[in-house]
Amino acid sequence: MTIITLLTDFGLKDGNIGAMKGVIWSIAHGVSIADISHQITHQNIQEAALVLVRAAPYFPDGTVHTVVVDPGVGTSRRPIAAKLGAQFFVGPDNGVITRLLERTEKMGQPVSFFHLNHPQFWLQDVSNVFHGRDIFSPIAAHLANGVDLNNLGELIENPIRIKLPEPARTSWGYTTEVIHIDHFGNLTTSMRREMIASETISHTRIGGMDIHGLAKTFGDFPPGKLVALYGSHGDLIISVVNGSAQNLLDAKVGDPVKVFLKG
Amino acid sequence: MTIITLLTDFGLKDGNIGAMKGVIWSIAHGVSIADISHQITHQNIQEAALVLVRAAPYFPDGTVHTVVVDPGVGTSRRPIAAKLGAQFFVGPDNGVITRLLERTEKMGQPVSFFHLNHPQFWLQDVSNVFHGRDIFSPIAAHLANGVDLNNLGELIENPIRIKLPEPARTSWGYTTEVIHIDHFGNLTTSMRREMIASETISHTRIGGMDIHGLAKTFGDFPPGKLVALYGSHGDLIISVVNGSAQNLLDAKVGDPVKVFLKG
Amino acid sequence: MTIITLLTDFGLKDGNIGAMKGVIWSIAHGVSIADISHQITHQNIQEAALVLVRAAPYFPDGTVHTVVVDPGVGTSRRPIAAKLGAQFFVGPDNGVITRLLERTEKMGQPVSFFHLNHPQFWLQDVSNVFHGRDIFSPIAAHLANGVDLNNLGELIENPIRIKLPEPARTSWGYTTEVIHIDHFGNLTTSMRREMIASETISHTRIGGMDIHGLAKTFGDFPPGKLVALYGSHGDLIISVVNGSAQNLLDAKVGDPVKVFLKG
Repeated sequence: MTIITLLTDFGLKDGNIGAMKGVIWSIAHGVSIADISHQITHQNIQEAALVLVRAAPYFPDGTVHTVVVDPGVGTSRRPIAAKLGAQFFVGPDNGVITRLLERTEKMGQPVSFFHLNHPQFWLQDVSNVFHGRDIFSPIAAHLANGVDLNNLGELIENPIRIKLPEPARTSWGYTTEVIHIDHFGNLTTSMRREMIASETISHTRIGGMDIHGLAKTFGDFPPGKLVALYGSHGDLIISVVNGSAQNLLDAKVGDPVKVFLKG
Repeated sequence: MTIITLLTDFGLKDGNIGAMKGVIWSIAHGVSIADISHQITHQNIQEAALVLVRAAPYFPDGTVHTVVVDPGVGTSRRPIAAKLGAQFFVGPDNGVITRLLERTEKMGQPVSFFHLNHPQFWLQDVSNVFHGRDIFSPIAAHLANGVDLNNLGELIENPIRIKLPEPARTSWGYTTEVIHIDHFGNLTTSMRREMIASETISHTRIGGMDIHGLAKTFGDFPPGKLVALYGSHGDLIISVVNGSAQNLLDAKVGDPVKVFLKG
Repeated sequence: MTIITLLTDFGLKDGNIGAMKGVIWSIAHGVSIADISHQITHQNIQEAALVLVRAAPYFPDGTVHTVVVDPGVGTSRRPIAAKLGAQFFVGPDNGVITRLLERTEKMGQPVSFFHLNHPQFWLQDVSNVFHGRDIFSPIAAHLANGVDLNNLGELIENPIRIKLPEPARTSWGYTTEVIHIDHFGNLTTSMRREMIASETISHTRIGGMDIHGLAKTFGDFPPGKLVALYGSHGDLIISVVNGSAQNLLDAKVGDPVKVFLKG
């Protein structure tokens, strides 16, 4: 069984995801399709890059990840496909792949990129505004069918990468920032557990409030308590137990966070 | 492999779509199910008709489209099934099929309609308020299993059709209107590319603003620019690059739009 | 074919459901997955219990229901699995199973419960905050693969049950309450059809308004009319025809409702 995943900013109300599944199943009969998210903030490539790297590694070898957050649709930006380790990526060449690519490289797995420029593998009529349906879905389906990447396009060396937010070391610890706010209002920072493996967090400062120490999980504290803890991907997150840190702190992506280490 | 699609106004929170999938998979083991949309505006048959015709043609032959936007559930409105070309439709007889039916007829493909009046193919207990679960899901599953339409009901000749909004020709061009607003805030008008194939659009007027010419795609103009262009179904759409025309113009479905042709 | 269902309060935007499907399909190749709901109100076990019992019975024997509404994730609350009749349940031991369990018991079907304490069937690295991905998804997949419950954990006798809201009999009828508000704004009460089988409802009082008699279905009355009727699960519901009772009455879960019987 091969799996195709879909990750877009298209929302669920207009039927566009339905059309993409129709295209896929017209070419790759019986393939399994998983929706990763269709509620990426409009045109937000940073957010899609993060959501992709959090979900993709849990899929088996051979999975084709179709990512269409595409403010440049119909312009000269390239449609690309990639092999990342044993998985595939299909989407616009706009850097949405950056986090998954860097993870794959860090693990020492091979990567290769292809400019999709063989229209015989696309739908016959390609609109200027919906390449998710007309180019990326058919390509994903052909990959799921085992078509070789070399047949679908031309090898390239330089896919676009976006600059990722990274914490900065200071004399007292790290300055970091909110990089994602989830459905529960938990705030993910760019700080990761492995950065402070041999040190201890004294307190975390956000929006004028200090959070002392680290919680192990939400349920360790009473409802309403503001806590810092490591999330399910090893990121430092800021949460309100049974509540929303986003609402309590009126937080937004990009808000500064300071992590103070024990002296 | 057979595919069943689901298109409703039920939303995703209450588990009703889950129940429908349980019914389908209890009868048609292993059939693939695609959600087209469950976020149709409550009881909005016009919107569902548009979303259906935009997605259904991308599915392969044999697909069964289950459409349950059903303000008349439990009244005397008929449950129907149809064969449209090589695909199937199941749902209430309220005109939601109109656009897909007219498209099929225009392509010269055969159509036939059946009043679903053989309860032995329904769930045993049929509620008055959820025929999506109790009648339409089992019928869709039986169709996916290859049961003949003649066994499920009685041939009828006159399914209900709704009046579709159409542009009107004037001395200077066309009066049209907003017929759909998508997830991005793009406004779809009832104007279609083929109507003005041999003429040229001078400007498009909406909400007191004039949009000159036509863009090829969103990325041709800087963010924030109001543009008119052809959408992915050949409709004339009005968009704000990387923004929302809905918000900029405070637009609603039904808002008038004027298309001026070059004299 | 085996089916795994997913019911959570995770929402659809962050990719967590995608990660769960990746885990499941990595272990149970080709299993069908149905989303029941991912829009349960945060940490609302009562709501999830209701949505579960409304959808689960429509699935075939062998289905594995994965329910992760889990305010206690990472604390000492037990992860459990259960066999309920011919179906399976996987999730935290927090009472979310109560309604489905009571239904199964009422039908005289066997039930058994297991504390999931064999980590060799989980993902290798278990986070403190996402057992849906790290424990419950792999367990659901192993159950779908036919692994015996006895291998996954230890038999227990006392799963947690929550107290369910029940109507109270009075001299003039019943006091009940709103227990769920659906996507359309229909209000479900805890009153059930079988409680008043041999009597007749005179009127239903909510928010200072009296609703006389019972409607058969929505379409029996003109749009805007406030009606009481039996919903698709035999519950007494309060609706506005083609409108929202929630909006009209500014209703919330827990609001009191009085049902007056004919004297």
